[in-house]
Amino acid sequence: MTLKELGEFGLIHRIVPRSGSGRGVTLGIGDDAAAVIPTPGLETLITADMLVEGVHFDLTLTTPLELGAKSLAVNLSDIAAMGAVPRFTLLSLAIPPTFSLELLDPFLDGFTSMAQRHGVTLVGGDTCSSRAGFVISVTLMGEQRSDRIIRRSGAIPGDRIYVTGTVGDSALGLTLLRRGERNGGAIIRHLAPLPRNEAGQLLAERGMATAMIDISDGLAADLGHILTQSGRGATLFLDRLPLSQEYRDRVPALADDLFALALSGGEDYELLFTAPADRQEEIRSLSAAVGLPMTDIGEIAAASGLLFLSPDGSPYTPTSRGFDHFS
Amino acid sequence: MTLKELGEFGLIHRIVPRSGSGRGVTLGIGDDAAAVIPTPGLETLITADMLVEGVHFDLTLTTPLELGAKSLAVNLSDIAAMGAVPRFTLLSLAIPPTFSLELLDPFLDGFTSMAQRHGVTLVGGDTCSSRAGFVISVTLMGEQRSDRIIRRSGAIPGDRIYVTGTVGDSALGLTLLRRGERNGGAIIRHLAPLPRNEAGQLLAERGMATAMIDISDGLAADLGHILTQSGRGATLFLDRLPLSQEYRDRVPALADDLFALALSGGEDYELLFTAPADRQEEIRSLSAAVGLPMTDIGEIAAASGLLFLSPDGSPYTPTSRGFDHFS
Repeated sequence: MTLKELGEFGLIHRIVPRSGSGRGVTLGIGDDAAAVIPTPGLETLITADMLVEGVHFDLTLTTPLELGAKSLAVNLSDIAAMGAVPRFTLLSLAIPPTFSLELLDPFLDGFTSMAQRHGVTLVGGDTCSSRAGFVISVTLMGEQRSDRIIRRSGAIPGDRIYVTGTVGDSALGLTLLRRGERNGGAIIRHLAPLPRNEAGQLLAERGMATAMIDISDGLAADLGHILTQSGRGATLFLDRLPLSQEYRDRVPALADDLFALALSGGEDYELLFTAPADRQEEIRSLSAAVGLPMTDIGEIAAASGLLFLSPDGSPYTPTSRGFDHFS
Repeated sequence: MTLKELGEFGLIHRIVPRSGSGRGVTLGIGDDAAAVIPTPGLETLITADMLVEGVHFDLTLTTPLELGAKSLAVNLSDIAAMGAVPRFTLLSLAIPPTFSLELLDPFLDGFTSMAQRHGVTLVGGDTCSSRAGFVISVTLMGEQRSDRIIRRSGAIPGDRIYVTGTVGDSALGLTLLRRGERNGGAIIRHLAPLPRNEAGQLLAERGMATAMIDISDGLAADLGHILTQSGRGATLFLDRLPLSQEYRDRVPALADDLFALALSGGEDYELLFTAPADRQEEIRSLSAAVGLPMTDIGEIAAASGLLFLSPDGSPYTPTSRGFDHFS
C-alpha cells in the first residue's frame, strides 16, 4: 500500500499508537499541540535536526529501520552533548506519495525503538507529502539543572581533551558503502550510530566536563567549535586518536593519510569534551563503569589556534576541516 | 550570492543575529541545543509544521517575505488554538544550493518580524542543503496553565459553535492566484495569514471556550476533529457562515455552490471554538475588544454526526471534507 492510498489521516493513525502517554505528557498526538509538564527547577533543552534524502541518506544504502533510529539518534546525541536527559520528541515527515508502507512501518519501528531505549516519548509532529525525496525533521526536548548543563564555551587552559569511543569509523563506513560493500563494523557505525547519552548525562551530573560537543561535523571542526566559543586554543596528539582496528586495517589502502578521515569525517556521534587534568582518575572510572572508552587526546591552551602533532612530533596540517552542507 | 558560495557556517551566521536572548533564554543558537527556562507552574505546549516547496507553496506565487512570516504563522495558529502563549521557536531549513540570498534574507525577515510581533524568540534549528525544493520545518513552544489549556475534546451538547473572522478567503485566494490574479484581500489572506493568538489566549484565560481548533484543513474537517474527539455531533447553519464581501462577490462565478469553498478550503487559520450558550454576551464583548468577529454558526448535539442546514432549512451535503495531503 502506498501513502497515497493510505491518506494523511491513515498515516497519522499509524503513528499515534507509537506515541505515548509517558511521564509528564498531558496531551500527546491528536490536538493542535502537545502538552508536557516540565520538571520543576530544570531548564528545557531543545534541538532539531533535518535529514534529507539524497543529502543525508540514500535509501539504497540504508534500511528504513536504521534510518528511523538514526533520525532520532542524531538528536539524542545533541542532548547528550549538553549533559541533559532526553524527554519528548516531535517527528515531522515529508513523504513522496508513492512511498510504501513497507518502507514507512520499519522506519517508524526504528524511530520508536530508539525512543524507547532512551525513555523518550513521541508527542507530536507533522506529516505531509513531498514532490521530491523523503524529508525527516525531528525535534527533541531534554531537561537538566542549570548548573549541570555543559556548554561548548567552558574549556579552560590546561584542561585535557577527551573523546569517547573511536573516531573516523562512520566516514570509513560511508566510503565503504559507496564502494559497494555492505557489511562490517564501520558501515554499522555509519548507518546505526549509538548516541552517548549515558556518558553525557553522567559527565554532567558529576560536574566533570568543562565543555562538550558531539562529533557530527568531524573531530577537527567540532573541536574548533569548542575552541572558538571558549576563546582558547589546543594541541592535539594524533598518535593518541582512538582508531578502531577496522579503521587501522582499511584506511591505509584507501588514503595516503591515516588521520584525515578520523579528523574530518563527520557523523561519529561520539562526545568530545574537556575536563580539568585532576579529574583523570574519575574519568577513567566513569569510562569503565559505562563501558565506553574515553581517551585523552590533547590539551587546551591559552592562546588561540589548533596545533596537530604527528606521531613523530612534527606539526600536521589536516586536509579538510569538516563537512559543509553547501560546499 | 548563492547559498553554495555562502556555505553552511556563513548561513548560520546570517541567522544568529535574528535569534534572541529573550526572556527565559539561557542559551540560544550556537551550541548543541538551546536552553530555556520554563515558567514555573505552567505546562509546555509544543507543535511542529513542515512546509514543502511544490506542495505548500510556490515561489512564483508567494514572496519570500510572506513565506517566512507564514511558516511561523501556521505554528502560532496551533498555539493560539490551545489558548497558550507562544515563547520559543526553532527553524530548520533544507535549501537548494543555488538558492540566492535575495530569497533567503527576506524569508528570514518575514519569519523574524512575525516572531517579534508575537514575542517569540528564535532559539535554534538546523540548516542543510536540499537536492529538491526548499523545505521549511518550524517548531514552536508555548506555555499555559494546565486548567486553561483548551483541547479539542471538551465540547458539550448545547454549546454554541463560533468561528473568528471570515472563512473561505484563503481557498478563494489560492484559486485566484492559480488563475493568474495577483492582488486582493483573499490572496493576501492566503499568502500572509494572521494567526489569532490574542483571541485564543483571552478565550483561554477567561475560561470561555470548551473546545478549540484552528482551521487549517477546512471548517468542516476541523469541526469534525472537535466532534470526534468530544464524542459529539453538531448542527451547522450555512446562512450564518461569516463570508467576506470579496468571497460573496467572486465565488458565484467560480463555483456552483457558495458554501463548498468556505467549508472545505483549508488554511483560513481562524479559530473554531465551542462555548456554553450563556457566555454569548462575554464573547460579544471579547470580540469587540480584540476587533475580531466571532460568529455563532451552530450548536453541539449529543448524538454524533454533523448536520449542515442550507439557508432554506434543508440538509446540505458538502462536496469535500477537507484537504488530504496524500490524496
